[in-house]
Amino acid sequence: IAKEVAKLLEMKAQLGGDEGKHKFVLKTPKGTRDYSPKQMAIRERVFNTIIACFKRHGAEAIDTPVFELKETLTGKYGEDSKLIYDLKDQGGELLSLRYDLTVPFARYLAMNKITNIKRYHIAKVYRRDNPAMTRGRYREFYQCDFDIAGQFDPMIPDAECLKIVHEILSDLQLGDFLIKVNDRRLLDGMFAACGVPDSKFRTICSSVDKLDKMPWEEVRSEMVGEKGLSPEAADRIGEYVQLHGGLDLIEQLLQDPKLSQNKLAKEGLGDMKLLFEYLTLFGITGKISFDLSLARGLDYYTGVIFEAVLLQQENEHVEEAVSVGSVAGGGRYDGLVGMFDPKGRKVPCVGVSIGIERIFSILEQRVEASEEKIRTTETQVLVASAQKKLLEERLKLIAELWDAGIKAEVLYKKNPKLLNQLQYCEDTGIPLVAIVGEQELKDGVIKLRVVASREEVNVRRESLVEEIRMRTSQ
Amino acid sequence: IAKEVAKLLEMKAQLGGDEGKHKFVLKTPKGTRDYSPKQMAIRERVFNTIIACFKRHGAEAIDTPVFELKETLTGKYGEDSKLIYDLKDQGGELLSLRYDLTVPFARYLAMNKITNIKRYHIAKVYRRDNPAMTRGRYREFYQCDFDIAGQFDPMIPDAECLKIVHEILSDLQLGDFLIKVNDRRLLDGMFAACGVPDSKFRTICSSVDKLDKMPWEEVRSEMVGEKGLSPEAADRIGEYVQLHGGLDLIEQLLQDPKLSQNKLAKEGLGDMKLLFEYLTLFGITGKISFDLSLARGLDYYTGVIFEAVLLQQENEHVEEAVSVGSVAGGGRYDGLVGMFDPKGRKVPCVGVSIGIERIFSILEQRVEASEEKIRTTETQVLVASAQKKLLEERLKLIAELWDAGIKAEVLYKKNPKLLNQLQYCEDTGIPLVAIVGEQELKDGVIKLRVVASREEVNVRRESLVEEIRMRTSQ
Repeated sequence: IAKEVAKLLEMKAQLGGDEGKHKFVLKTPKGTRDYSPKQMAIRERVFNTIIACFKRHGAEAIDTPVFELKETLTGKYGEDSKLIYDLKDQGGELLSLRYDLTVPFARYLAMNKITNIKRYHIAKVYRRDNPAMTRGRYREFYQCDFDIAGQFDPMIPDAECLKIVHEILSDLQLGDFLIKVNDRRLLDGMFAACGVPDSKFRTICSSVDKLDKMPWEEVRSEMVGEKGLSPEAADRIGEYVQLHGGLDLIEQLLQDPKLSQNKLAKEGLGDMKLLFEYLTLFGITGKISFDLSLARGLDYYTGVIFEAVLLQQENEHVEEAVSVGSVAGGGRYDGLVGMFDPKGRKVPCVGVSIGIERIFSILEQRVEASEEKIRTTETQVLVASAQKKLLEERLKLIAELWDAGIKAEVLYKKNPKLLNQLQYCEDTGIPLVAIVGEQELKDGVIKLRVVASREEVNVRRESLVEEIRMRTSQ
Repeated sequence: IAKEVAKLLEMKAQLGGDEGKHKFVLKTPKGTRDYSPKQMAIRERVFNTIIACFKRHGAEAIDTPVFELKETLTGKYGEDSKLIYDLKDQGGELLSLRYDLTVPFARYLAMNKITNIKRYHIAKVYRRDNPAMTRGRYREFYQCDFDIAGQFDPMIPDAECLKIVHEILSDLQLGDFLIKVNDRRLLDGMFAACGVPDSKFRTICSSVDKLDKMPWEEVRSEMVGEKGLSPEAADRIGEYVQLHGGLDLIEQLLQDPKLSQNKLAKEGLGDMKLLFEYLTLFGITGKISFDLSLARGLDYYTGVIFEAVLLQQENEHVEEAVSVGSVAGGGRYDGLVGMFDPKGRKVPCVGVSIGIERIFSILEQRVEASEEKIRTTETQVLVASAQKKLLEERLKLIAELWDAGIKAEVLYKKNPKLLNQLQYCEDTGIPLVAIVGEQELKDGVIKLRVVASREEVNVRRESLVEEIRMRTSQ
């Protein structure tokens, strides 16, 4: 029946095109957007910065399909699974749009039996979440992931991931930021020490994860009310999750009577200490905070976890900086690849994901505010003419320029006015105009005009390419 | 019920992870593939070539979501509509994956009331077609589109699109190629002159489009048998579609008694003549063939259409070059934007789409055959040590290099063997090794080793960045 209905609807749509047109809404799907040329110019800058950093750290690139078999995604995202987009069953495999780049990466490693790789992947992912587009939260959004897979000595790749976050946020000049760090083993050890039953670890972890959006009182009542945790256990958690600091806090917790009894907590704290030593060598501890309230939503993390937030001075009188939301996150997930391997062979992984949309929003707003003129093309020269009937000559010249690698445009008019041609350069930021004229053609020269200064020089046609290159090289 | 079943399945998957694992197939969806680092390196090269060409012609970039409202795509693709991927109805809007980049572009123009733009768009599109992956036919594949929208003097933008195809196929060095050109108005005029009823124009056009894959006899019997065309009309079409040539053929057809009676055919032929004049100015007519058998599948074309095929010498004894398939196509579609505009306002458009997957296949096979070693990273230097206990010093040095913009790697081992570190450079093509040693640290120098020549020099630490830059600049 569904098939027949679809067929009929299709036929109706094809036949009744005019009728349907009036009800048709011209928009992009909810939670998505187009990128205009200006936005693309900003996006290209940001991507170039990020890719340069990933390449500086020796990463290879991979790509995976936008959809995966549904079962590839099943059971990887905990409570967030309901946000996955499924494709319609049109006969054949059941498919879902990817929810992140990490699960496809793990699937790729298991499928190709790769045990050792350092890769980046920049692509769109899909979540049926409530969009908040002004804050940069979309249903279709980019992730920029860098991951290191392989059996290595502890905390060296983990430290590099944090170094990468530090480099990217510095390079993008987004203002002050803070990278919060924690460890899933320490969280689990802490839950155990506080009297949380094993079966509630993940769900209590989800509650802790909400601390960046909710006050502790609400999170506590979710733990006790909805999730059935004892009030005493919740209060004990409440004390720990207030703590944040650096090496000193790690030392302090290593002496904590409850935590030091717990094997997982001790492991987590030991590695955290090692991590901070490496971060000190990298010279970046100034922006790192060991923070026991950091939990991260996803199920698959097994060790270090981290999240970077931008800080914003609320106003000059307030001393405390205010967080405006997460722009990067990641952690260690040593079990995920094993979930895909038929024999359960594990490949330890650690990685970071840069949340590019919020960064775009900030940079877009900054560009709007600054009235900075952003060029959306790179055209070096407009091929123009002052007189009529020179279209053929313009086309001949521009073909010469294109073939020499010069970025050139021509107006698609037979007889455009010179003023309109010059105006086009002003509007689009083209710096030079090559003007074809009858006298110049006879003399074997082209008149080259500098748009900004209105300076004009005659250049011999055979030297034109060189002249344009010289004048547009920075 | 569906919701409940989904919930139960989810729960089952989460609980019975081990049971499910054995039946789970580790693969990408049918018709899709991952890109390995090596394939990505080739892809990056190809994209860079194509983007450079688009920018040379002054194009801006835009991007649109991977899915559109289902009704946005409805009624645009004729018989191919059945190949569209729909998303599951999960409550909310009905969505489909984009089938090409042209319809989203037209939707973008109408939605933003843009009447004038030259843009490129490189992104994946989706077709539930029968995949033929070795020939580069996938269900998820890239399109690289360049389009010019706006009311201009005839054939100038059209000629530029053909120039772009010519430049890209030349720059990619894929071997000999041919660009076939025709015009939808001429086709329609020809159908009318042959006695095809108006109502059958589009479906007969679809049949003609199959001539590159089927012999004329089969196409004829489809026209007569399945589509109810009279045998006489079919035979008249059969005579025209054999014709191909250049300006001479255009002149000949302008004299054709039947065609010259038809307004559409005359318009098409007149513009074709103008197009060839511009292509002569661009110096590219050598690879252009005016071909009456070219029809193009899509419904929305209204004027010039074209398609580029690679030619391959079957073997040295055969004179005739054999086509190995289309690698680019496009044409003029003056009505598409108007289909989205509430008042039906038209924006004339012409554009070209580069079919990148077939090009990837060819280049991949060429790389495999040539045993050319493709580097998948750009790392300039490996930071290594000859003795144990120097991890801290390696990390300190690499942070200095990263901060100076040097692309550097370090092995994630506490005490890696020098031999293993050198082997890593050999394997991945890293040209330099910066070796930290106790004596060198005391002396304030780093030993820099050139992997290819095994030459070693001591470089003062403060000059190391400069030295690496110098030795790795081309």
